[in-house]
Amino acid sequence: MLANKKPTAAPENPAVQDACDGLAQLKVTNGSTPRALFSADLVSEEVRQLLPTNYTIRPLNESDYAKGFLDCLAQLTVVGDVSVELFKETFEAMLQQKSNYVVVIEDLDRSQVVAAGTLVLERKFIRGCGKIGHIEDIVVSSTERGKRLGIHMIQQLKHIAREIGCYKVILNCAEKNIAFYEKCGLVVKDVQMTEYFTPSVPKTSL
Amino acid sequence: MLANKKPTAAPENPAVQDACDGLAQLKVTNGSTPRALFSADLVSEEVRQLLPTNYTIRPLNESDYAKGFLDCLAQLTVVGDVSVELFKETFEAMLQQKSNYVVVIEDLDRSQVVAAGTLVLERKFIRGCGKIGHIEDIVVSSTERGKRLGIHMIQQLKHIAREIGCYKVILNCAEKNIAFYEKCGLVVKDVQMTEYFTPSVPKTSL
Repeated sequence: MLANKKPTAAPENPAVQDACDGLAQLKVTNGSTPRALFSADLVSEEVRQLLPTNYTIRPLNESDYAKGFLDCLAQLTVVGDVSVELFKETFEAMLQQKSNYVVVIEDLDRSQVVAAGTLVLERKFIRGCGKIGHIEDIVVSSTERGKRLGIHMIQQLKHIAREIGCYKVILNCAEKNIAFYEKCGLVVKDVQMTEYFTPSVPKTSL
Repeated sequence: MLANKKPTAAPENPAVQDACDGLAQLKVTNGSTPRALFSADLVSEEVRQLLPTNYTIRPLNESDYAKGFLDCLAQLTVVGDVSVELFKETFEAMLQQKSNYVVVIEDLDRSQVVAAGTLVLERKFIRGCGKIGHIEDIVVSSTERGKRLGIHMIQQLKHIAREIGCYKVILNCAEKNIAFYEKCGLVVKDVQMTEYFTPSVPKTSL
């Protein structure tokens, strides 16, 4: 939900587990490369070289449902019952929208997503019709601490923001995480406020 | 730039003025209705009825370049040199992206935009592939104080967020504006952090 939260545990999420058990539906059986959410050209070579051996950092792709992407996110906040179909539908919507840069770090030995983070591009009319990047949903699996994956993820998202022409990045975090993000180069700016709505059925998809 | 800033003055912005002087290029000469950024069905009838006489609240449309939209924004932060072409290009990109809900309040007697605000839709994989709304770039012209236009704008943006199925809205504001947003129904949640980049040429539009 928020950009800062680090997992404090690795809870079992039955809904996610059920969904992952059915992942055969999404496996690429014809040998073709799964579609990525954005161009791999936006991956920083500098960040890639700092990763542990046999780890890679790359855009989210269609096959990551089968690689524990949602299990990883479930360490951040509630994921809920996300079927393969709902995952694909959301992936497709993000592909069309071209504003969600979801990045994952994969442990290649285990074929598991061990960290994730998102940069959301926002176009504005201010600042000469400038763009900003919202850093969202940063998570590192609880088993992966001490490998600096969180810092590498933030550097990668900032790299994308620069490459696509953003004049700044912003994120929201709890006070206890300020020191971490200061190490990443960010400074405290303002206060975040929020309002949660009671669930209702959307009347339009516009 | 930030969702909270209220104008403290109405500075002259020569670049904006120059651009507005050339607005004839954008005027609709064939009598057709200018395109709106999103469906007018998302305007709250309740909010509309609370406005002063001869004020309207509606989606941004193509002709608002000619109605002082950028002058209004210039009371919030730097707008810079935005030509008619750049305005149209950004408007078109937002139309394609379908995630920017820019709302304006117009004084119909003067055909002037007197307030503006934006809801940015963000799709997520968490919360059952839920959506959130970022409230951004709220501004009310300095001559329009005391008419509750700021509160009406926030209620309108929250209305859109509910209608399109967001489970929450978030915004960032300076501490001095917390009381205003509390009156609008929001509560303080976290800290906003930021990093500004030095200008550089984007290598890709991906």
